[in-house]
Amino acid sequence: MANSKFEYVRSFEQTDALLPNTWIVVRVDGRAFTKMCANYGFEKPNDRRALDLMNAAAKAVVADLPEITIGYGISDEFSFVFHKSCDLFERRTSKLVSTIVSTFTANYVYSWSTYFPDTPLSFPLPTFDGRAVCYPSVQNLRDYLSWRQVDCHINNLYNTTFWALVQLGGLSNKEAEKALAGTLSADKNEILFSRFHINYNNEPEMFKKGSVIFRDLVDPDSHKVAEEMDDLAEPVQQSKSQVEKDKKRRSKARVVVEHLDIIKDEFWDKRPWILSGKPGKVPKET
Amino acid sequence: MANSKFEYVRSFEQTDALLPNTWIVVRVDGRAFTKMCANYGFEKPNDRRALDLMNAAAKAVVADLPEITIGYGISDEFSFVFHKSCDLFERRTSKLVSTIVSTFTANYVYSWSTYFPDTPLSFPLPTFDGRAVCYPSVQNLRDYLSWRQVDCHINNLYNTTFWALVQLGGLSNKEAEKALAGTLSADKNEILFSRFHINYNNEPEMFKKGSVIFRDLVDPDSHKVAEEMDDLAEPVQQSKSQVEKDKKRRSKARVVVEHLDIIKDEFWDKRPWILSGKPGKVPKET
Amino acid sequence: MANSKFEYVRSFEQTDALLPNTWIVVRVDGRAFTKMCANYGFEKPNDRRALDLMNAAAKAVVADLPEITIGYGISDEFSFVFHKSCDLFERRTSKLVSTIVSTFTANYVYSWSTYFPDTPLSFPLPTFDGRAVCYPSVQNLRDYLSWRQVDCHINNLYNTTFWALVQLGGLSNKEAEKALAGTLSADKNEILFSRFHINYNNEPEMFKKGSVIFRDLVDPDSHKVAEEMDDLAEPVQQSKSQVEKDKKRRSKARVVVEHLDIIKDEFWDKRPWILSGKPGKVPKET
Amino acid sequence: MANSKFEYVRSFEQTDALLPNTWIVVRVDGRAFTKMCANYGFEKPNDRRALDLMNAAAKAVVADLPEITIGYGISDEFSFVFHKSCDLFERRTSKLVSTIVSTFTANYVYSWSTYFPDTPLSFPLPTFDGRAVCYPSVQNLRDYLSWRQVDCHINNLYNTTFWALVQLGGLSNKEAEKALAGTLSADKNEILFSRFHINYNNEPEMFKKGSVIFRDLVDPDSHKVAEEMDDLAEPVQQSKSQVEKDKKRRSKARVVVEHLDIIKDEFWDKRPWILSGKPGKVPKET
Repeated sequence: MANSKFEYVRSFEQTDALLPNTWIVVRVDGRAFTKMCANYGFEKPNDRRALDLMNAAAKAVVADLPEITIGYGISDEFSFVFHKSCDLFERRTSKLVSTIVSTFTANYVYSWSTYFPDTPLSFPLPTFDGRAVCYPSVQNLRDYLSWRQVDCHINNLYNTTFWALVQLGGLSNKEAEKALAGTLSADKNEILFSRFHINYNNEPEMFKKGSVIFRDLVDPDSHKVAEEMDDLAEPVQQSKSQVEKDKKRRSKARVVVEHLDIIKDEFWDKRPWILSGKPGKVPKET
Repeated sequence: MANSKFEYVRSFEQTDALLPNTWIVVRVDGRAFTKMCANYGFEKPNDRRALDLMNAAAKAVVADLPEITIGYGISDEFSFVFHKSCDLFERRTSKLVSTIVSTFTANYVYSWSTYFPDTPLSFPLPTFDGRAVCYPSVQNLRDYLSWRQVDCHINNLYNTTFWALVQLGGLSNKEAEKALAGTLSADKNEILFSRFHINYNNEPEMFKKGSVIFRDLVDPDSHKVAEEMDDLAEPVQQSKSQVEKDKKRRSKARVVVEHLDIIKDEFWDKRPWILSGKPGKVPKET
Repeated sequence: MANSKFEYVRSFEQTDALLPNTWIVVRVDGRAFTKMCANYGFEKPNDRRALDLMNAAAKAVVADLPEITIGYGISDEFSFVFHKSCDLFERRTSKLVSTIVSTFTANYVYSWSTYFPDTPLSFPLPTFDGRAVCYPSVQNLRDYLSWRQVDCHINNLYNTTFWALVQLGGLSNKEAEKALAGTLSADKNEILFSRFHINYNNEPEMFKKGSVIFRDLVDPDSHKVAEEMDDLAEPVQQSKSQVEKDKKRRSKARVVVEHLDIIKDEFWDKRPWILSGKPGKVPKET
Repeated sequence: MANSKFEYVRSFEQTDALLPNTWIVVRVDGRAFTKMCANYGFEKPNDRRALDLMNAAAKAVVADLPEITIGYGISDEFSFVFHKSCDLFERRTSKLVSTIVSTFTANYVYSWSTYFPDTPLSFPLPTFDGRAVCYPSVQNLRDYLSWRQVDCHINNLYNTTFWALVQLGGLSNKEAEKALAGTLSADKNEILFSRFHINYNNEPEMFKKGSVIFRDLVDPDSHKVAEEMDDLAEPVQQSKSQVEKDKKRRSKARVVVEHLDIIKDEFWDKRPWILSGKPGKVPKET
C-alpha cells in the first residue's frame, strides 16, 4: 500500500516563519487559572508556592533552550525572549510556541507535588496557552518587558490593598472593590499604611517586581549596552561554529531567578550578554 | 505608575486566525522521542504501555475540548480534528495549537506513573510540539487521515519485520536493514510468515491501524454521509443556542478509543455525526 | 564586486501562498473614485461610458489570465475568481493581486480615450487597489458573488431614486437623502413610478445586475452543477498535460460580458465549466 | 432584498498587516519584459527612453505617496521604501502593494507616448507585479538597497561587455556568452578597453548606478545619521499633528531623480531626512 496517493495533503501545510532579525517573545498564560486558584486554595493576594512552581517550570524552559536570552514572569504568565539573531526551528511560530508551552506544562505538572505536597492534582489538570510576538528593536523589546513589570506593580499594589481590606479590614469583596474605585497609587499606599501598618515597600520583591530568569555570566565590557544593541547584532549572520560555541557556553551557564527592576538601564548595562547574545565568561565558582 | 507609555507594544501582536469553513487538524508530535524510547526502555517494535499512555492523553484532550470531532494517533504523534464550522478561540492558530499541546503534555506527564509504575520520569521530561493545518474539503480531510493510517501500516509492517529479524532472527540492526532494502509489502509478509511463523494479519489492531478517538453517539440517519458533508455544513453560521446545545450533547457523550479502518467509507457512514458536526443521540446504556 | 555580502536580505522575504483547494477572489477597487467622478464629470446615477471602460479593462484581464473562471463588476469594483484547483504563481497573494491590479490599470488607462474621447486624463491618474480572499466551498463563493450582486441592486435602486428626486424632482441632495431615509425597496419603486413614471424594471440590465464576464463554451453535460462542484474538483491534482490542454482551450474561448442574475442556480447550471474548471467545447461560430 | 444573508462572506477576509516599526520595501517588477524589449525594439544593453519612462513612473509614485522615503530602480524593477514609522493603510500588504503597482502602471502606460512617440503601445500592455518585504533595521534596509545596486553594477558591466562583443566585435550571442564565461570584473573592463576603447568608468551614471528618487530637503543637523537611525525612530508613536505636518512638508518637497552611490555612508549622511523620516526644510529656490 503506497502512500503517494494521499501525500498531496502535505501541500496544505503553510509556513509560519517569523521575520528574521527581530526579538521573539513567547508568552505563556495559565488557562482558567481563576478557577484553578479556587480549586487548589491558592493564598491571596499571592501564593508563594504557586509562584515558586511557575519559576521552577520557567527555569526548566530556559535551561532546556539555550536560545532563550531572558524570561520574565508574573502571576500565571511567563514571557520568554529569543535573541533577534536566533534561528531555532527556522523561527517557525508553531514550533517555538508549542515547544515552550509543552516544556513549561510538563515541568509544572511534574513539579507540582514538590510545591504542593499536600494537594494532589485533579482534573482538569493545569494547562497553559501561548503566543509569539516579534519586536524589531531593543527599545520595543524593553518596552514590552517594562509593560509587563508595570502591570505586575499595578496589579500587586491593588491586590495587596484589596485583600488587606478584606482579610484584615473585614470588608466584603464588593465593599473592598468600591473602596478602591478611583484611587491612585499613593492612596493605596496610604490605606495600607494608615489602616494596616503595612509599608508596601517592605513587601517581598517577588510580589512587587515579578521574576527575571537569565544566565549568570560575567562580561568585562559592560557599558551602555542597551543603547548600542540594535547595531551590535548586525548583520544577522554569524559563523556556524561561533553560533555553536556561544550556544554551548550559554548551556553551561547557571540559570538564575531574580526579582529586579528591569525597566531601568542598570539591569541591562550590568548584563550585556542578555541583549548582545554574546555570552561572556561563566563566573568562577567560589 | 501608569502603563500607557508602554502599552503600544500590543500593536505588534499579529492575528493568526485560520480560514473559516475549513477543517482544522492540529497534530502533536513527540520531541526527541527516539532518545526517550531509549532512556525509558520502550519495547520494540511497539510498546503497548507507551501507546496506551498516548491514547489516555489524547482521550483527555478530546474530552476537554468538545469542539474536537475526531482524533487519530500512531506512534508518538496524534492528530486532532476541529469541525470546519468550529469557532473555538476565534480559530486563532496559537491558541488552538498551544491549548492542545499543553493539555496533551499535562495528561501525558500526569498519567505516566499509571502506565510506567516502575519507571519514574527524569529530565528532560517528555514534551511535544504541534502545528495546525487547514483542509478545505471532507475529501482533503479524509485523505489526510488516510495518509496517516497508511503511514502507520507501512511503518508497522516494516518495524515488525525488522525487529523479528533482529530479536528472533539474530541479525544486527544493519543486517536487518539490508535484508529489507527494496522489499515490498508482500515480501515482508512472507519473511514474517516463512521465517518466524508470524501472520501479520494476527498482529494487534492497535499496532496495525493506530487509534481513533471519537464520541459514541447514535444517528438513525446514517447513509452516504461522507459524500454530502461539504454541503451539510453550509452556510457556516448556526444559531448560537444550537451551537451550545450541540456542544453540550457532545460533552456528555462517551469518548471511545478504537482501532479501525478510517480509510474506507464504512467508518464514516456509520458515524455521520463526526463529519456533520451534528451530534446524534447519546446511546442508551445497557 | 561580489553580491554575496548583501544577499542575506532575501531571507526576509516571507511566503504568502494561499490555501490550496479554495476559490480565490481578487477584488479590484477604484481609489478615490468619488473625487474622480467629480473631476471627469461622470453622469449620475450611472455613467455608461465609465462602466463600459471598467468592463473593457476587466475583459482584458480575463483574456490575459485563462486561469480566471469568472469576473463580476459593479460601479468602480471588479471581482475575479480563480478556480480552486488553480496553481498560478504558486497561489502567491502578492503575485496574484499585483498582476491583476496592474493588468486592470494598464487597460483602464490605455482604453480611456476610447470611452472618453473628449476628456483627456489628468493627474492624479485613475488607480485601483486590490485584495485576495479565499472561499473554501462553492456555496461560499456563490454567496460572495450574490453579496456583490445584491449590493449592486440595493445601491442602484437607491441611487436611481435619489438622482430622480434631485435631477427630475428638483430636490437638493440633502432633501433627497431625507426623503429616502427609512424607505424600503417597494417605497423607492413607488416613488420612481408615481412621481417620475419610471418603471425600475425597465432600467438597463447593466445598471440593475452589474456585469458578468466569462468564457463562452458549450457543455452537453450541464445539470445541477452547482451542487456537485465541491466534489468534482477533488482531488486537487490533475495531470500537467490535462491542465495545459484545459488552459489552452480556455484561452481560445470567446470572453463575453453579460448582465445576468448570478444568484439563482440557472446561471451556473447552464454554464457548468465555470465551476467545474473543465472547459467544454468552444461553440461553433455561426 | 436585504443583504444580510450573504454578508457572512466578509468573515473570510484575513488581515495582512506588516509588523510595525520595520522598514517596508515594495518592489515592482516588469512582467515578461524580455518579450516586451523585443516587441518594442528596446536598445541594448540599455534603452535610455525605457529607463527614463521607468523613472517618470516611479517619480509619480513617490510624489503621490509622501509616505515613501526613497525609491531605487534598475532595469525593469523599482523598489519603494516606506519609513518604519509609516502607518499608511494600517500597513496592510495588499493595499500597499496594489496601490504602488497600480500607480506605477497607470503612469507607465500614460507616459509611454512621451518617451516612445513613434512606437504606439499594443497588446498585451506592459504590466508589473509587486511584493512587500519588511526590514527591521537600518542596516538591513541599506543592505537591501546595496544588494540591488551591486546587482545593477554586475549586470551592467556584463551587458555592456556582452553587447560590445556582439554589436562592435561581430560575435554571435553564443560566442559572446562563451567569451565572458568565468571572467572577473577586471577582465571585462580590460576587454572593453583593449578591444573597443571603451572606458567603463565613462559610461553614463544612470546605467552604472541605477536611479535614486527622493525628496530634496535641507537639514542642518546632518552627521553620522545612518548609525543612529534605529534609535531615532523610537518609540513608534508620534503625535498625529506632527505626523500630518511632516507629511505636508514632504508633499511640498521637490522629488528628484539622481544616479548616486547609495552603498557608502555619504549619501545617507548628507540626507538625514531619508532615514529619520523627519523632513528638514524645503530648500530655497534660487
